[in-house]
Order: sequence, then C-alpha cells, then structure tokens
Amino acid sequence: MPPAEVAPRIGLIGAGGRMGQAIRAAAPALVTATAGRGDDLAAIAHEVDVLIDFSRPDALPASLAAAIGAGCALLIGTTGLSDADHDAIDDAALRIAVLQTGNTSLGITLLSALVAEAAKRLGAGWDIEIVEAHHRAKVDAPSGTALLLGEAAAGARGVALNSVRRDDPGGARPDGAIGFAAVRGGTIAGDHEVLFLGAGEQVRLAHRAEHRGIFADGAVAAARWLAGRPPGRYRMQDVLDLP
Amino acid sequence: MPPAEVAPRIGLIGAGGRMGQAIRAAAPALVTATAGRGDDLAAIAHEVDVLIDFSRPDALPASLAAAIGAGCALLIGTTGLSDADHDAIDDAALRIAVLQTGNTSLGITLLSALVAEAAKRLGAGWDIEIVEAHHRAKVDAPSGTALLLGEAAAGARGVALNSVRRDDPGGARPDGAIGFAAVRGGTIAGDHEVLFLGAGEQVRLAHRAEHRGIFADGAVAAARWLAGRPPGRYRMQDVLDLP
Amino acid sequence: MPPAEVAPRIGLIGAGGRMGQAIRAAAPALVTATAGRGDDLAAIAHEVDVLIDFSRPDALPASLAAAIGAGCALLIGTTGLSDADHDAIDDAALRIAVLQTGNTSLGITLLSALVAEAAKRLGAGWDIEIVEAHHRAKVDAPSGTALLLGEAAAGARGVALNSVRRDDPGGARPDGAIGFAAVRGGTIAGDHEVLFLGAGEQVRLAHRAEHRGIFADGAVAAARWLAGRPPGRYRMQDVLDLP
Amino acid sequence: MPPAEVAPRIGLIGAGGRMGQAIRAAAPALVTATAGRGDDLAAIAHEVDVLIDFSRPDALPASLAAAIGAGCALLIGTTGLSDADHDAIDDAALRIAVLQTGNTSLGITLLSALVAEAAKRLGAGWDIEIVEAHHRAKVDAPSGTALLLGEAAAGARGVALNSVRRDDPGGARPDGAIGFAAVRGGTIAGDHEVLFLGAGEQVRLAHRAEHRGIFADGAVAAARWLAGRPPGRYRMQDVLDLP
Repeated sequence: MPPAEVAPRIGLIGAGGRMGQAIRAAAPALVTATAGRGDDLAAIAHEVDVLIDFSRPDALPASLAAAIGAGCALLIGTTGLSDADHDAIDDAALRIAVLQTGNTSLGITLLSALVAEAAKRLGAGWDIEIVEAHHRAKVDAPSGTALLLGEAAAGARGVALNSVRRDDPGGARPDGAIGFAAVRGGTIAGDHEVLFLGAGEQVRLAHRAEHRGIFADGAVAAARWLAGRPPGRYRMQDVLDLP
Repeated sequence: MPPAEVAPRIGLIGAGGRMGQAIRAAAPALVTATAGRGDDLAAIAHEVDVLIDFSRPDALPASLAAAIGAGCALLIGTTGLSDADHDAIDDAALRIAVLQTGNTSLGITLLSALVAEAAKRLGAGWDIEIVEAHHRAKVDAPSGTALLLGEAAAGARGVALNSVRRDDPGGARPDGAIGFAAVRGGTIAGDHEVLFLGAGEQVRLAHRAEHRGIFADGAVAAARWLAGRPPGRYRMQDVLDLP
Repeated sequence: MPPAEVAPRIGLIGAGGRMGQAIRAAAPALVTATAGRGDDLAAIAHEVDVLIDFSRPDALPASLAAAIGAGCALLIGTTGLSDADHDAIDDAALRIAVLQTGNTSLGITLLSALVAEAAKRLGAGWDIEIVEAHHRAKVDAPSGTALLLGEAAAGARGVALNSVRRDDPGGARPDGAIGFAAVRGGTIAGDHEVLFLGAGEQVRLAHRAEHRGIFADGAVAAARWLAGRPPGRYRMQDVLDLP
Repeated sequence: MPPAEVAPRIGLIGAGGRMGQAIRAAAPALVTATAGRGDDLAAIAHEVDVLIDFSRPDALPASLAAAIGAGCALLIGTTGLSDADHDAIDDAALRIAVLQTGNTSLGITLLSALVAEAAKRLGAGWDIEIVEAHHRAKVDAPSGTALLLGEAAAGARGVALNSVRRDDPGGARPDGAIGFAAVRGGTIAGDHEVLFLGAGEQVRLAHRAEHRGIFADGAVAAARWLAGRPPGRYRMQDVLDLP
C-alpha cells in the first residue's frame, strides 16, 4: 500500500454525519469538497479524484451517477445496502474504481484475512470462539465486526456462519461450532479476539481499537489507494494487497 | 500461610473420585489413610491430623461424627450441600476445626477477595463484566467460579447477584449490571477475568489455571493449614489470612 | 467516594501545561480561576475551594502559602519534589487539607492497593513480574507507574524494590525477584499488568488507560473529594477509601 | 492435513531423551521401534514408515543412512545442526522425504506464517514487539520461539532480524525495530504474543502452550503427514499446507 505520489482531492458525501465529520478531522487537507442533501454532486465530482460516501442507501444512485459522470473513484461506506444496490455498484465498477465495505479499519481487514487463513489450515479439532468488548452504550451483540470475523472463519471452512453460529455457551458444544461472547461496559472503543482452541495449545488473533477514529483513518487510507485506479470493484483487502 | 512445622497426616474420604485421586497424587507422603464406602472412618480419623472429604453429601454425617470422635480437623470439599448440612457443619465447628469450600484454588480465593475490594472502592460508574473460558466438554455456563466471583462483586456492592446478573449482552445495559460471558473450546483448564470498566480506564483482575491439579494442591495446602487449629468454622480466605 | 454535595470551585496553577489544559478540558465548569507565572495566587485562592498545582517544584512554596492564607485545600501533582518540599507539605497539612501524588489515575491507585494485598497474601512461591506497554515515543523504561506497582509489591513483602528488581530476564531467576518488561510502539496510552505466577496457576492484575485524559479526570475527582476536608496530608488511596 | 489413511509405523531415535519419552507417551500405538546408542538403526528403519530423530547432531549421519537404506521418511528435530549437516539433509532429500525443524508445534508453525503475512501487509508505520512468558527455570531470553517469530517478521519486511532487533526498551525507539520482552516465573509452559502497534489500533497474534506435550503431539502429526511422501525436503509449514 504505497501512498499515492500526489495527495488526492477527496469529495465527501454525508459530511455532516459522524463518520463524515471524523473523516474531515482525519484529513482536513485532502477533503476539498463536501456535499449535503441537495448539493450538486456532479459539480463536486468533477473537482475531486475520489468521492467518499458515508451517507444513506437512498443516496447511492446519485453518488454512482456523479462518479461515473466525472470519471472519479468512489469509496462507499454506507451500510444497509440492498441486492439492487450491489448490482448497481457492480455495473458502475465497469466504468470507475469502486470500493464498498462495511468496515474501514486496516487492522480488522488484516485480521479477517489471518482468521480465514488460520481456519483453513487448522483442522476441525481446533474450536473457534470469538470474543468482543465494546462500550456500555452498544446495544447490538455480537458486533458487526465479530460477525464479519465469524464469516471469514466459516467461509474458510466451507460452511455458512448461520449453520455453525453458537450464541449460548451452555450445553454440549457442537462439533464445528463458532461461538460468540460479548462484553459491554465503560468506554471500550472495540476489542475483538478470535480464539483457535486445540489440544493443549491456543492460537489467539486479536484487534484493539484505541478509539473510533481509526475507521476514518482507514477510509482516508482507502481513498488515497483508490484514487487513480482502473475501473473495478475493490475490497478493503486490496488496499493491503491481501489475497 | 506459613507451612505447618510438622507435616500433618491426612485421611482421605472419597479417595477413588477424581479429586481424591488428584489429592493422593499431589501429596502422596501426607495421605496416610484412605476411606471408601464401608470403611471404618472412626478408626481412620484417630490415625490422622485432618480428614479431607471430597465424596458425596450423604457421606457428610459420618465424616463429621468421625472427626468429632477423634478430635481431628475436617476439610469438606463436597458440593451440593443442603441447609441442614450447613447446620451440622456449624454444630461440629464448636468442637473441631472445619473448613468447607466449593473452590480450593488459592489463586481464586485471593482473586475473589480482590474483586470484592475493587467492587467496594470503585463507584457505580465502573461496569463489571466477568469472562471465563473452559475446555469444550464443560456444559454448564457460566462456571461456578465465575458465579462465585460475581457474588463477591455483588456482595461488596450490597446487592444480590441475581438482581443484577446479566447473561445476554444484547439490548441496553442496565445500571449496576454484572455481565457474564463464556468461551468453550479445546482443553482450557480454566481462565477467569473480572473487568471493571470505567470512563477511559479499565481494571482487569484475572486467574488462569494451567491444569486442574491446582484444586488438589489447594486442598492439601488448606489441610496443612487446618491441622491443629482450634475449633471453628473456617473459610479458604482464612488460609490466606484474608479479611 | 461519594461526590461532594456541591461542586467545588477549582483554582488551577500551571493551567498552560499539558495536565493543566487537560484538567480544564475535563471539568470546564469547575475551574473558576487559573494562575500563570506572576498571577496573584493569594487572590485566586480566596475565590476557590481547592487549588490544583501541576506546575513546577519551584512554584510549590507560593502554592502552599496561598492555600494556607485562604484556608482552601491543595492538590499537588507536581513531580520532582525534594525532601524539603515534602517537609513543607507536611507542615502545611497541619493547617489545610493537602493531597500530593505522582499518579492521579483512580484505576492505578486501586490496582496498587490490590497488588500490595496479593503480594502480602501469596507466599514466596509466587513469582512477581510486571509488564507495561506504552506508545513509541516513551523513552523511559520501566514506566514510573510500573515502578510504583513494583514498590507496592515489594513493600508488602517487606523488602526494598531495589534489592529485588530484575530488569534483564536472562539467567537464573533469583528467589523473590520482581521482574520488569516493557513494550514500546504505536500509540498505546498505557497498559500495566502485574503477574503473580505460582505452581500451576496465575493471578494477573491489570490496568489499561484508553487515553491519557484519565489522569486529568482523576485529578478532578481527587479535587472534588479534597474540597472541604479537615487539615491533613492525604493520599490518592484515601479518595477511594483504601487502607 | 488429512490424517494418513493407515496409521504409520514410527521408529524413534533418541527414545530415552525428554522429547523421545514424550513422543512415546503421545502415540504409544504408533511407535513400533526405538533406538538407543548402538542399536541397529538399519534394521529398525526397515520395519517402519518413518523415523523420528530427536537425539544429537553427531547421530545424524547414521539416521540419514538408515532412512536412505530403507527408503523410509525421516523427521529431524535435533537442534544445533551445522551447515554440513544441512547439506547432508539436502542430499538425502533427493532420495527420501525429510522434514527438519526446530519447533514442532502446529500452533507456532501457523502463527509464524500469520506473523509473516501481517508484517508484509502492514506498512512501516506499525511497530512490531514480541512478548513471551515461560516458567521460572528458563534461563535463556528471548526464547528460541520468540526469535523464530521475530525472524518471520523481519524476513517478511526484507531485513535481517539482527539489524532491527531491540532487547532494551529504554531510549528512543528506532524506526523499524522489532522489540523483545520476556517474563519468567511460575510454571508457564510457553506464551508468545507478536504485537503490531499502529496509529490508534493494534493487531495482536498470540500462541499459548498449555503444557509442553504439544511439541510431541506436533512431531507425531508431522510424522503421520510425512510417511509415504515423495522424496524432498519439507518444513513444518508444509504439514499445514502453508505457503
């Protein structure tokens, strides 16, 4: 992931949201344009090298159209996308560079690849458990990131996560189960640990976010990487040159 | 906990059970007599300084009678005792030294005291969560030790554990909740961690058992400490001179 | 540590320093006066309930005089104090409430007390090791906090830390040694873990600072606690009602 | 790593040593022959599918000759090999399957590959630190395994470990340094953690050995995998099908 020779100009869609504000704070010199509801996206797209969209799914068509019209790259961090949205992204990727992701942390991106590798290489005799910890105000459990890691492990084993997911630690542990445990309290930004528990030994792969700003930092790193790429649909893994 | 000047003679009740076997392995030179069902406990009690009973609740009356008859100390590790059993222990404690416990690990005994101290000193703004990990064959969750630690924390806060216990990490976290999370897999002998999660900082108090033999080691240490004590009902905390 | 009924007015000496700025950010409503070099400390002291001094040792006499003159409490976080400074603090403590400390984290204060308790209760068969981790720019190792924790452990064992301190992990481990290990990298605000390593079991007592603002938060908590106290020399432990 | 269809017959050289005894305990049904000094290795080699040699470097020529003579596979766990020994192994690998390794843990083998991957993908902005913990009797530090992990990280970054190794955590941290820290105490079988410390986030890759028997288990797993393979020089990574 060598940094781009020239710092790209970034146009930010959804600049008033939590992630939008964090991205502006993370790279004030790069964000040369911002768009709120009603702004002329097409004009903005012509002034930048890459658009970042952390707004809402219903804004996606306009973002895609603007990026295609200007020929600039597009980073999509919007969550809650439909199958139709994904189809539209695939179509756009024939003409511009698009990267869509639900998690912009570089560390989590790497961890996910390492978890897949470990799950693939270690036999079924190694039990997989995922433990995550977040601040007291987080109401969903397990975290989306824990599920993403579980999917990486399950996928590497060739099964669907839903068929092996275990949320209740009581009772007999089914062979091949992937267990989830969650801690909630204080102000923890986000800890994740994937445990591979074998006979007499353990492999433990973990990530700690010290603060939530790392997601903005990762988005900026991805935007820098994406600017100037040839058309295609990219993933966060590509930013780290992961297989 | 200075070791006794002279190594005590130990009589073991329930010598064929898992803990009985482990205690014999832990201190072969000290265990000078063993009793199975039908053996003459009274005679055995006269030959030893301390009886250790890790058998079944229905064997308790005979153990108490034998210890009282011989004037020797009695360490009770039997689980599943009734209120009547506890009354009988209290009565016996007027005449002999008795220590009854559900957990003979010295490390867990200390940890429990530290958890109580932390819960007492840290205000309600610190959330408490307990995470434990055990081997894949363990079917109960949370572990008995995790609940014991939770009771230490709740007691120090002046509440009943049942009124604040939280087993499901989803949804809004109630103020004052004590959360439990469990990991199951591999051959983990037993890890416990009590987290105090505050605003920007965390205190984490943990215990790791490297193998299950520590419970036998702790029972032997407790028996050594108990031999020769004046009558009374003792706790594992007393072995470590904890308040 | 019940919060004071009425929020105290805080006067801040050394308001322009790193800790001074952090304290203002932590409690903007409480800091009603600030003093730089040359300001009239006596006048400021009369307007507040407690002075906080995080400036330099050479400013201590003026701080003490101002607090005594106004009869207000004084929290001293200045480091590098001489024996003469400590004598002056002792004298002042006959007339006003004074709390002097090198570490204002509530979590570390508690941890230090727990470490002492553990070191006192666990026999010499438990080895003590202290591991700390800080950001890449920290040049001193072990951290001052690690040494403070080591002193708590050594003191509880009745020995001087210098006589048992072990910085190099190679070679035979002397009985009773307290080992130190340090990690440096990234942006870690400060992790500390004290390990008690026994035969087959481990007790691990740890603290994690998520960011460095906790020291300002703790200073404000201590100032709130100190305001209105009778004369005396207090310690951070007193804020948590620790023995 | 699918287990061999038919359990291989194992011949054990150095059966009386610590690892030799552990291997016999780990797979009593598979070890069909053992060789001490002076035994007829050639005869033994003809009766087995794979020879395991955990003896001494000076026994290597005889082990190689016996395996070549019988056409059986050879697993070499002997440490302290010379360049000439390695040349002889390379020559033998033209005619038989040979696997030589200094660490037979499957978990460490995987961890080493994951560490290399992480070091390769994460930029120079991520600091690498390695922390290990072992029992109080271990006199060398850092552990051989910690150095092996450090070499995996350094190699992935294209540098020699010796040029970036940092054993003393004091002073300014050089760019690109790989730091080592060691804990010694109690009966810890072996914990290793490789930390990648970035800006606001951390990736932590760890291994825990619950007991030292895992090295024998891994040797048996490797021998099962090796039996019947075509000639070649293999590594532990190959057992897990790692790149």
